[in-house]
Amino acid sequence: MAQALSLGRRGQGRVWPNPAVGCVIVAAGRIVGRGWTQPGGRPHAETEALRQAGAAARGADVYVTLEPCAHHGQTPPCAQALIDAGVARVVIAAQDRDDRVDGRGAAMLRDAGIEVVQGVLADEAGRDHAGFFSRVEHGRPLVTLKLAQTFDGRIATGTGESRWITGPEARRATHAMRARHDAVMVGGGTARKDDPSLTVRDLGIGWQPARVVVSRRLDLPLMSRLARTAAEVPLILCHGHDADPTLERTWRDLGATLLPCAARGGQLDPVDVLRRLGDHGLTRVFCEGGSALAASLIEADLVDRLVGFSAGIIIGAEGLPGIGAMGLSRLAEAPRFSLVETRRVGADALHIWDRA
Amino acid sequence: MAQALSLGRRGQGRVWPNPAVGCVIVAAGRIVGRGWTQPGGRPHAETEALRQAGAAARGADVYVTLEPCAHHGQTPPCAQALIDAGVARVVIAAQDRDDRVDGRGAAMLRDAGIEVVQGVLADEAGRDHAGFFSRVEHGRPLVTLKLAQTFDGRIATGTGESRWITGPEARRATHAMRARHDAVMVGGGTARKDDPSLTVRDLGIGWQPARVVVSRRLDLPLMSRLARTAAEVPLILCHGHDADPTLERTWRDLGATLLPCAARGGQLDPVDVLRRLGDHGLTRVFCEGGSALAASLIEADLVDRLVGFSAGIIIGAEGLPGIGAMGLSRLAEAPRFSLVETRRVGADALHIWDRA
Repeated sequence: MAQALSLGRRGQGRVWPNPAVGCVIVAAGRIVGRGWTQPGGRPHAETEALRQAGAAARGADVYVTLEPCAHHGQTPPCAQALIDAGVARVVIAAQDRDDRVDGRGAAMLRDAGIEVVQGVLADEAGRDHAGFFSRVEHGRPLVTLKLAQTFDGRIATGTGESRWITGPEARRATHAMRARHDAVMVGGGTARKDDPSLTVRDLGIGWQPARVVVSRRLDLPLMSRLARTAAEVPLILCHGHDADPTLERTWRDLGATLLPCAARGGQLDPVDVLRRLGDHGLTRVFCEGGSALAASLIEADLVDRLVGFSAGIIIGAEGLPGIGAMGLSRLAEAPRFSLVETRRVGADALHIWDRA
Repeated sequence: MAQALSLGRRGQGRVWPNPAVGCVIVAAGRIVGRGWTQPGGRPHAETEALRQAGAAARGADVYVTLEPCAHHGQTPPCAQALIDAGVARVVIAAQDRDDRVDGRGAAMLRDAGIEVVQGVLADEAGRDHAGFFSRVEHGRPLVTLKLAQTFDGRIATGTGESRWITGPEARRATHAMRARHDAVMVGGGTARKDDPSLTVRDLGIGWQPARVVVSRRLDLPLMSRLARTAAEVPLILCHGHDADPTLERTWRDLGATLLPCAARGGQLDPVDVLRRLGDHGLTRVFCEGGSALAASLIEADLVDRLVGFSAGIIIGAEGLPGIGAMGLSRLAEAPRFSLVETRRVGADALHIWDRA
C-alpha cells in the first residue's frame, strides 16, 4: 500500500478535479501491475494497473489508495473493471467520500464475491486525498499557505526588498511543492509588486499548475508576466462583481479564466473565492501570499496546511510581516496548527504544520 | 575526547570566569580518571582527574578539552601537575587563547618530554569554549538570543498577552538552556511587563545563573519577583550614569550588583553593557528579549547564537514583534546566521543558528 500511495502522489497537481489515486496488483507475491491516475484525471489508476497486469490479474490482490468508483462518469466504474478482471481481493486505504461512491464501490466488489479489506494506511491516504475530500465534502480546495520568512518573521524589508530571503534549495523545494498542487495563488498586491510568473521552473517537469490571482478590481498590469503567459499556462482571476467590464474583457481575450466572487467589507470574501475555485474543479491550492490574502484566509479558518521556510536573517520591525492584520486580541482566539515535520533545506529551516 | 567534551559541558553556567573544561585519563585502555571544572571555577578539570587516577596516571594518556594552564592563578598550573604525575601523552582539543596560556601550557609539557597532540575535535571544543574565548579575546561574553515566536514571528498579542505561545516542553528546554549560561538577560521593559523571576525551575539542579536586567533609569518595580529574590540569586543591573542615586542605593541594599554603563542616543550602549558584563566575569549570556534590547544587540552585531522556538499559532500583524526596529533598509545589510540544527521540541519547532 505504501507503494500505491507513492504512485498515487505522482498525479498530485495534474489530475483535478479527480483524486490522485495509486494502484498496485500483486499475484503470487509478484507485482504484475502498477497504475496511477493519469494527467487530466483519466484513465484511473485501477484501469492502468489492470491493463498492465492483463490475464495475471485473475485471482490477484489489488492495493488501491481510494475506494474504486462505482458510478459511470466519463469512464466506466473501476469496481466493475476489477470484477470483470476476476481479482480475488481488494485492499483499500481510504473510503471515497464522494457522494456518488461512498461505500458503493466496496459493496459492489463484495457482492461479486471479492474479499475487501479497508482502512490500510488510512491516515496517510486521508492526507494524500485531503484536497479531493475537501472539494467533495466542503466544496472548496485544500489550502496550503507558504511563507518564506526571516528569523524574525518578515517577508521583505520595509522598502519591499525580498529577493532573496531563502536560499536556492528552499526556492527549488517551493517549486516542487507548486508542482504538487493544482494551482498557485497570490493576492493582487503581490501580483502588482513582484510581477511573478508563478510557474514551476528548473525541475524538468512537463506540466504547470494553474495560477490564481485574487484581485477585486482586476487592476493588474497588462504588461506583466502573468498577462503575457495567460494563453500558455492557465490563469484564473478571482474578481469582484464591480470590476471594470473592459478589464474583464481584456483579460478574457488574453486567455484568462474569470471567476466573479462576492465581496464583503471592501474585499473579496475568501469563503466565496474558494467556493468558486472548488466549483472550477481545483482540489489543492498553494497560496504564496501576500500578507493581506494570507490574513483573510487564516481569519476565515480556510488554511489547512502551513509551510514555513525560516532564513537566518534578521530585518527588524520595519520589515513587512508575512501575515497582515487580523484584528485578534486574545491568544486563546488565535488559530492553531500542529507540527508535521521540521528539517533543514539548504541553508534554511523548513517547518510544516497541519490544521490542529 | 568526546567524553571529555561531554564532561566539560557539565560545568557550563557555573564556572565563570573560568572555562568549563573536561578531562579523561586513560591507562592501558582503561579510564582511570575523569574530571571537569568544578562550580566556581576550581578545582580545574585536570586536578580532579589526576586526583581520581592517583598512581595510575604515571605513563597514562590524558584527554583535555582545553590547553592546560601554565600560570599560577588561584591554583598552581595544571601543566606542572600533569608533569609531576608523570603522564606520557596529553591530547588537547583547543588551544587556550588566554594571553597567560596561549601555547605556553603545551610548551611546558613538551619541554618535560611529554608527547602533545593538539586540535582533536577542535571545532566542537571551540564551540564549547566560545564564551570563555569571547571574554578573553573580545572582553565580552558570548550572547545567545532566544525568541519564542508564533508562526508569523510574534511574541505576544497586540495587548501583550504571551502566556503561553510555546508548549511546556519548549519552556523546559529553555530552562535547561538558561542553566548552561552564566546569566539570563532581559531589558527593562520586559522586566516591568512580565515580572519574570528568570530562574531555572523544575530541572532538579542545584544552581542558578545570574539575572541581568538592562535598564538605563533603574525604574524597575521594587515589589517585583526580581527585587524580592535579589539576595538569593545574583541580580545584576546595568544602568545609565544618570540613574537616580536613591534607586541605585535601594537596589544595592536589596542585594543587586550595579554596573553603570555608557549611554548612546538615549539608550544604553549595548557594546558597553557587554564589556561591563565581561569585566564582571560573565562568559555566556542568554538574552530573552524584549524586542528593543534584542534589536540593539543585533544591530551592534553582538549576537553570537540565535535560538528560535516556533509555535503553530498565528496572531497577525497587530502582534508584538520579537525584534524591534533596526533602521535597516537593504536586504544586503541584514545580519546573517547559519543553521546549526532544527528539530521538534514537544509541539514546537526549535531552530538554532550561529553567527554566519
